[in-house]
Amino acid sequence: MPITKPKGTYDVLPTDSWKWNRLEVVIKKVCRLYNFKEIRTPIFESSELFHRTVGETSDMVTKETYDFLDRGGRSITLRPEGTAGVARSYIENKLYAEGNVQKLFYMGPIFRYERPQKGRTRQFSQFGVEALGSSSPLMDVEVIAFSVTALKALGLKGIKVRINSIGDEESRAKYREALVEYFSQYEEELCGDCKNRLAKNPLRILDCKVDNNKEFFQNAPKISDYLNEVSQNHFKQVLNALDEMNIKYEINPNLVRGLDYYCHTVFELEADIEGFGAQNVVGGGGRYDKLIGDLGGPQTPCVGMAFGVDRLLIAMESEGLLKNNNEYIHCYLIGLGEKARVVGERLLYTLRLGGLICDADYLNKGLKGQFKQADRFNAKFTAILGDTELENFVINIKNNETDEQETIPMNDLYKYIINYLQSKTASPCSTCSKKEGE
Amino acid sequence: MPITKPKGTYDVLPTDSWKWNRLEVVIKKVCRLYNFKEIRTPIFESSELFHRTVGETSDMVTKETYDFLDRGGRSITLRPEGTAGVARSYIENKLYAEGNVQKLFYMGPIFRYERPQKGRTRQFSQFGVEALGSSSPLMDVEVIAFSVTALKALGLKGIKVRINSIGDEESRAKYREALVEYFSQYEEELCGDCKNRLAKNPLRILDCKVDNNKEFFQNAPKISDYLNEVSQNHFKQVLNALDEMNIKYEINPNLVRGLDYYCHTVFELEADIEGFGAQNVVGGGGRYDKLIGDLGGPQTPCVGMAFGVDRLLIAMESEGLLKNNNEYIHCYLIGLGEKARVVGERLLYTLRLGGLICDADYLNKGLKGQFKQADRFNAKFTAILGDTELENFVINIKNNETDEQETIPMNDLYKYIINYLQSKTASPCSTCSKKEGE
Repeated sequence: MPITKPKGTYDVLPTDSWKWNRLEVVIKKVCRLYNFKEIRTPIFESSELFHRTVGETSDMVTKETYDFLDRGGRSITLRPEGTAGVARSYIENKLYAEGNVQKLFYMGPIFRYERPQKGRTRQFSQFGVEALGSSSPLMDVEVIAFSVTALKALGLKGIKVRINSIGDEESRAKYREALVEYFSQYEEELCGDCKNRLAKNPLRILDCKVDNNKEFFQNAPKISDYLNEVSQNHFKQVLNALDEMNIKYEINPNLVRGLDYYCHTVFELEADIEGFGAQNVVGGGGRYDKLIGDLGGPQTPCVGMAFGVDRLLIAMESEGLLKNNNEYIHCYLIGLGEKARVVGERLLYTLRLGGLICDADYLNKGLKGQFKQADRFNAKFTAILGDTELENFVINIKNNETDEQETIPMNDLYKYIINYLQSKTASPCSTCSKKEGE
Repeated sequence: MPITKPKGTYDVLPTDSWKWNRLEVVIKKVCRLYNFKEIRTPIFESSELFHRTVGETSDMVTKETYDFLDRGGRSITLRPEGTAGVARSYIENKLYAEGNVQKLFYMGPIFRYERPQKGRTRQFSQFGVEALGSSSPLMDVEVIAFSVTALKALGLKGIKVRINSIGDEESRAKYREALVEYFSQYEEELCGDCKNRLAKNPLRILDCKVDNNKEFFQNAPKISDYLNEVSQNHFKQVLNALDEMNIKYEINPNLVRGLDYYCHTVFELEADIEGFGAQNVVGGGGRYDKLIGDLGGPQTPCVGMAFGVDRLLIAMESEGLLKNNNEYIHCYLIGLGEKARVVGERLLYTLRLGGLICDADYLNKGLKGQFKQADRFNAKFTAILGDTELENFVINIKNNETDEQETIPMNDLYKYIINYLQSKTASPCSTCSKKEGE
């Protein structure tokens, strides 16, 4: 029996890997525009890190982590999200010592042991940015503007920000009290999870997909009524800047996000995606001012966001943004006979050293099969080398766009192809209206 | 106590991540030249996969894997090398059904529980190519030529191939017998590991770093004396093509490579690297014709190679190939006062949407501190916005290359910067010798 991939994982095959690459190139380019710089942290961390950051009571830590002991008996966990590792690294490497905001991004695999279903796997890919060191509301705005720019750069339409403030600690403490008081009246009607949440983390009740259709839910206290002046002011400045920048948003008073470490601004990103309906959230984030301090670092105000890369790719696919691979090679070499094939390999080596994309047959196919293969690779040129050509140090070259075919000196092959490609890509001079070399 | 990274892992910080990116871009470009396409397989696989591919008796499987049970009781292993996952995926996704050679590459993290030391970590990064489906000696040559091209493209010098043939199964069976017979005479003098290897896998004795200085080692049988005609012929064709292509190699009769699945051509890649001395191997590979069949797929001849990415980066660093980051931004915006800062954020948003790399201050620094920051970012322009400018819808812009400073309409900011950048990068027309727009 052949071995299969582990449950909940997937392979990205060559038919799809170009899509991943395209997305990554675009996102990295937008990071560059915003001056976010890449950080790479390990695939696994000490289990304790996630217990202290994501929160002991969250589903992510209690039910969904890949925990194990290494051969030295250390408890380690495959990362179930991206922020904790970045925070750990920020502290351990004293990135705060520079005295500047650290604008970082990461991209890579994330692991959660969930029931696999369409669009949800146990290994998936996440991209995120973290701005560490600034308490300015404009930093929140910068991270939101980045997110919107990234989605626009990917070609998505109808981008909208759903936003809320969950205030500072003081505001949240008051709000928590109000929530406990309110939901205690309806304790019998709450789902099992929410009964637990009532004691441990009442804000999470607002996230509950089971309870949020029940009638008593509508009249639950709103965080907006419990924000103190500092919190109100922070939120007002965020919204004011978004208005100035003409970035569309909608305040959603029930948006609290799943993680323990958020404060002030929390947000989600939506786009109009064919077939996604109301499930059109592609990313989200928020401010987390306590995390670095809680992990033993200096008090450091932070704000960040993350995209689910798999989800973005499905969205782009649905929107028809990933149709055109534009795959081609410059030259397919047909060598007829053993000697010609060896000389052909040398020619390919030279062509490739010069930057031309080439391939050949390695299956002893017949001439017809090789022409077919050249077609399948979308080769711009097919070079044919047989005994006669070998003897005369020439090669037969066919331009597959024009169907022109000619015999040229073997050593001119590279120059011949390059000259043609350059004449095709050069744009005419705006002054004399001639192309280079014309 | 702050939490630290797990033993044997490392963070790639922004001061270094650009180096990783540069290497990856170059390697991917060379893959494109050779028409190798990317495949991405999961970070972990069923433990059984590595037992069946790498071999039950190898150190890699017995002592160095990160094995664990997931929450469903499945035995899984963080991948300790890259080929097994690609082979599993090739079979599971029936990539052989296309009837063509599959030329694949992969890049990503690899995990081995070894004693960490300089240049050796428990999580490290590997890049590799695999050509599946061809038994042609020219396929071996193609993979070797690829490796040499990649090292050249990275700027490394003195690239050399160390090569050997370990023949087909028949040849290796005879050779194995001869080795057992020979080393049995010296069993007492062999190290503990090699005593074991003598029974289980005598070829591995040739890899032993403990025993290979002992006198009896020099006269051990050589594989070259045991190659049958098919094996000799395959090797001859490989060497012949390398000669034709002028790729430098050296036959090393003791080179057998550590893994069970190799046959015929095995090779390692060396470069002249400052400070590396004789430890200058940066990658290696070989042919493996039985692996796919052993894993339950159709008999499929394959050849592949891998680079240690970490080692390549250290090599490039030693050779001074990673000195110049050439980091810059196009525009640093200084907003004086709250209103100016908000309007500034809108200007940044527009500039970035237009492809300009921008940043600003998010720490309420003074004017001096902000100019310093613009310098540190190597900003080509600094734009200054105060109350007077705001009132008049203008902005003050300073070209940091020429030190020229002027006040322009706020809405012209983007055009102003873009025009300057284009005038700098345009090359003169070869016909009229004027730059675009001159």
